[in-house]
Amino acid sequence: MSQEKKQSSKEILRHSTAHILAAAVLEMFPEAKFGIGPATEDGFYYDFDLPRTLIPEDLPLLEEKMRALINNNYPFEKREISASNAEEHFAKAKQPYKIELIKDIIAKNSLHQPTDKTQNLKITLYKTGNFVDLCSGPHLDSSGEINPNAFKLTKISGAYWKGDEKNKQMQRIYGVVFETEKELTKYLKAQEEAKERDHRKLGKELDLFHFSDLVGPGLPLFTPKGTIIIDELQKHIEDICRHYGFQKVKTPHLAKIDLFKISGHVDKFSDELFHVTSKKKHEFVLKPVQCPHQTQIYASQNRSYRDLPIRYMESEKQYRAEKSGEVGGLSRVYAITVEDGHSFCRIDQVKEEVRNMIKIIQDFYGSLGLWDKFRVSLSVRDYAHPEKYIGTKEDWDICENMLQEVSDEMNLNAQKREGEAALYGPKLDFMFRDAFGKEIQIPTVQVDFATPKRFNLIYINEKGKKENPVMVHRAILGSYERFLAMLIEQFAGAFPLWLAPIQVSILPVSEKFNDYAEKIRQEIFAADVRVEINNRGETLGKRISEAEKQKIPYMIVVGEKEMKENSVNIRQREKKEQQTMPLNEFIKKIKKEIKEKK
Amino acid sequence: MSQEKKQSSKEILRHSTAHILAAAVLEMFPEAKFGIGPATEDGFYYDFDLPRTLIPEDLPLLEEKMRALINNNYPFEKREISASNAEEHFAKAKQPYKIELIKDIIAKNSLHQPTDKTQNLKITLYKTGNFVDLCSGPHLDSSGEINPNAFKLTKISGAYWKGDEKNKQMQRIYGVVFETEKELTKYLKAQEEAKERDHRKLGKELDLFHFSDLVGPGLPLFTPKGTIIIDELQKHIEDICRHYGFQKVKTPHLAKIDLFKISGHVDKFSDELFHVTSKKKHEFVLKPVQCPHQTQIYASQNRSYRDLPIRYMESEKQYRAEKSGEVGGLSRVYAITVEDGHSFCRIDQVKEEVRNMIKIIQDFYGSLGLWDKFRVSLSVRDYAHPEKYIGTKEDWDICENMLQEVSDEMNLNAQKREGEAALYGPKLDFMFRDAFGKEIQIPTVQVDFATPKRFNLIYINEKGKKENPVMVHRAILGSYERFLAMLIEQFAGAFPLWLAPIQVSILPVSEKFNDYAEKIRQEIFAADVRVEINNRGETLGKRISEAEKQKIPYMIVVGEKEMKENSVNIRQREKKEQQTMPLNEFIKKIKKEIKEKK
Repeated sequence: MSQEKKQSSKEILRHSTAHILAAAVLEMFPEAKFGIGPATEDGFYYDFDLPRTLIPEDLPLLEEKMRALINNNYPFEKREISASNAEEHFAKAKQPYKIELIKDIIAKNSLHQPTDKTQNLKITLYKTGNFVDLCSGPHLDSSGEINPNAFKLTKISGAYWKGDEKNKQMQRIYGVVFETEKELTKYLKAQEEAKERDHRKLGKELDLFHFSDLVGPGLPLFTPKGTIIIDELQKHIEDICRHYGFQKVKTPHLAKIDLFKISGHVDKFSDELFHVTSKKKHEFVLKPVQCPHQTQIYASQNRSYRDLPIRYMESEKQYRAEKSGEVGGLSRVYAITVEDGHSFCRIDQVKEEVRNMIKIIQDFYGSLGLWDKFRVSLSVRDYAHPEKYIGTKEDWDICENMLQEVSDEMNLNAQKREGEAALYGPKLDFMFRDAFGKEIQIPTVQVDFATPKRFNLIYINEKGKKENPVMVHRAILGSYERFLAMLIEQFAGAFPLWLAPIQVSILPVSEKFNDYAEKIRQEIFAADVRVEINNRGETLGKRISEAEKQKIPYMIVVGEKEMKENSVNIRQREKKEQQTMPLNEFIKKIKKEIKEKK
Repeated sequence: MSQEKKQSSKEILRHSTAHILAAAVLEMFPEAKFGIGPATEDGFYYDFDLPRTLIPEDLPLLEEKMRALINNNYPFEKREISASNAEEHFAKAKQPYKIELIKDIIAKNSLHQPTDKTQNLKITLYKTGNFVDLCSGPHLDSSGEINPNAFKLTKISGAYWKGDEKNKQMQRIYGVVFETEKELTKYLKAQEEAKERDHRKLGKELDLFHFSDLVGPGLPLFTPKGTIIIDELQKHIEDICRHYGFQKVKTPHLAKIDLFKISGHVDKFSDELFHVTSKKKHEFVLKPVQCPHQTQIYASQNRSYRDLPIRYMESEKQYRAEKSGEVGGLSRVYAITVEDGHSFCRIDQVKEEVRNMIKIIQDFYGSLGLWDKFRVSLSVRDYAHPEKYIGTKEDWDICENMLQEVSDEMNLNAQKREGEAALYGPKLDFMFRDAFGKEIQIPTVQVDFATPKRFNLIYINEKGKKENPVMVHRAILGSYERFLAMLIEQFAGAFPLWLAPIQVSILPVSEKFNDYAEKIRQEIFAADVRVEINNRGETLGKRISEAEKQKIPYMIVVGEKEMKENSVNIRQREKKEQQTMPLNEFIKKIKKEIKEKK
């Protein structure tokens, strides 16, 4: 509870600072029309309709004005007046957006209240200095409670009034505010670091992927280096899953729309579907998900209870028509390569399947050093409204219990979330913390009774009768695009050895040692280690710094001494000390480290 | 030359037998209207407009009638008459199709001849028994020259008059004819065998791929077993190519149409392009080839002469809108997974690039035992018409010479084919013979000056000037779909060990040995060998025969003796003798064989 109170006091601070910003804007632009100004996760924003476009240089000026308003220690004065008086006030102040908001409040209230009561509707106003805002509060007592050195205006952007493209575009100013200056400094430093780690910036510097104007936005092209990381991730996850009985399949990106009508995706994703046509009257859609295609492989043979579970996995692209304004970097793309897997099993096998899928999640995230920073939620049905779900109460009871038992057995401490289950069954969701402490939710295990029924998937049970299998969905790394973006930021581009696009860079001291460099390159390459020679004219110092910038795990410098001894001089990334050792010893060492995914 | 004469005499035999078929049809259906009846590769066909639909039982009856006509030894009587007399003759015989053909002949002649000569136009008729045909010959002297035991009617199908869908559909009878009965028997046996090896039949029996009505035709779904073969092929070809400096990239399936306008594919493949749209007004096309996407990765960085050659490879699906009537099996599909590679290089590097690509082809086809059965053609420009090509005479001279030199150095004996070069440069094409002796053309190495210019690809040369690289295209296995179809037929489903979806099947003698079976399964699996246990209730004999049908390379039978000794009893595919050996020895043996791709 105290946690919640604290959150709330932070929100009061943020929202109050938004008022101060608005008051400062009013001083700078007496004609300003005001939209809304809520608190956000780290601060606040406010939307304005202004006589001219803001420029970045405006922000420090506004900050100065805000500081003055804070120093004047204006109280936040609350006033309750009738709706009609409020309208009158804002009409006089020439604030059309506020009037629209009051009208919305009246309309909303008249829906819930008898008409006579609407006339008694009270509207709350807050006044700070000369600025009066329509606002329900609560606020700080006075502007002096804001630390004048603990806030900052961070960004100007456009925003449609009420978020609707058809409305007028306003100007939004973002800001952050904390209780202490120290917190602000910490936040700004983290932001700076995040910018340095931004996957779009590092992706370019490390030459991992590229967007081409001719190909189009949202359609990443993976360069040789980016491809290596994706392939290594895929090999790794497939190796793990194969140990748990998953078999890889390959399905095309097209299908008749019928497939997705049956699965329900046409209803759900109609706007996100890409339609495919040709001059020869073909009509297909691009798959927005993998599951329906995989059901058709299950359905391609007669299945008996002895054949189950049958587990398929696939790493293929799927396509979703995101809003063109929303695609950017690898986080939001049209072409998403999804690692997706399903187990088709009997109901008595669900628990074991779920357990295995969790072990896969553990193995995979464990190998990336992320398994210690996770939490799990168990999403179950809304018990008050069983009619919202597909399937019998018995099936639901069994499966929810199974998930609870698995959580207990595996010490997952899954937090139960009532009403959060999928339409077709309960699920376990895993949340991890990324490099900035932000929570990312990727892995999930979902029990699905509905899809096998929709596709009329069948197996013959022990009694020779037809029965629908249960489908258990699992996502481990989700999409390679988003996962790569996350990994780039997680490691700031300094990938673990096994993922590094180039694992070893050989730097001959001078041209004289090119032949020796080539000789050891061949030996290292033959050992399946990714190796390059950098002998491109520049000084050794420059080439060392280039390898450091490229975050290559091992540098090998070779000169007279090394050539004579058939040895190598090694510098490991982020380590000061150098080491000289025989070549074959180095190869043994690095191979071991790659295998162990250190 | 004598080879050519022989071909021609075979054609005379085939075409003459078509006349005998028509004469037999006339006896059976006096109302029959006749279309055309040409010779084909192994025999002939004839198109008829008949009062009823033919049934398979008609064929032996017609063969009997043909035999009688042969035994009567009717001469093929040639008669030359005027066009108008010929029209009169076929009008009386109620043969509208023949009259149409005569009209076509007249029309064609009047185009090339002065009007007065057209009236003297002679039409050739051939009479055999009661059957008179419009035909320019030549023919055998008499029907008795046909061996009555060396022909067979093979198939009935529909065919539009003159191949035009708008015309009437006729009935076509296919037949084959040889000089000797032995040749016929050999042909029919080969056909039978081909049917047994047909990739659609074996693909189903071996559970390699599947077509779903809900997904659509031309869109194969690869099951776990089919996926293993494709993945193994991909790993193999990528391993080989990586040794020659190729780097894998990944590109999406969509692009703006602009990309293919620049590449020239919109002009060339307009009808085969799939167009992609959404409710959000996106407009893309599905890529019909990989090259343009790869140019955009090249173009994503500044390149210097020192960086070249840059070699990309990719195994991705591309999509072509084939006619829906033409898709079938894996040979013709909408979704084609193409293994495609390109080298971007300087002109002085072309020869070395070509040499390496040929070595890749040699390594790959050698590993499949196909390298000894190939021939090569060198397609050069039409020297009389240099204006048909892009690029300077000097560039062409250099590149043609390079290809010729490489052919000489590598003893390829490439046959020069004038005028067969691509628009953009000369090429080397490799032809192999498949299981039935049929020639298949897959690998190719093509030199391309045009594409880098169209996309304005640049590198900075030694003098600091901008220059276009040369692009060398290479295909090794072409598309995985067609290659898999070819491999299935080549090996009749009995894939080499390294490609076999299941390499070892463990058959416990009885349930008592299930635990031991599971123990050795785990050990074999841990050694990265694909292994299954078959303990599904049935008798050992039945399970052995099942494994044989599935063409599994190794069967391991385990019982009392093996369990005590920690040994395995091995049966190798297509070998009679069994062998018992310690488990670890077997693992060592099979791992060695897999690695050596035996």
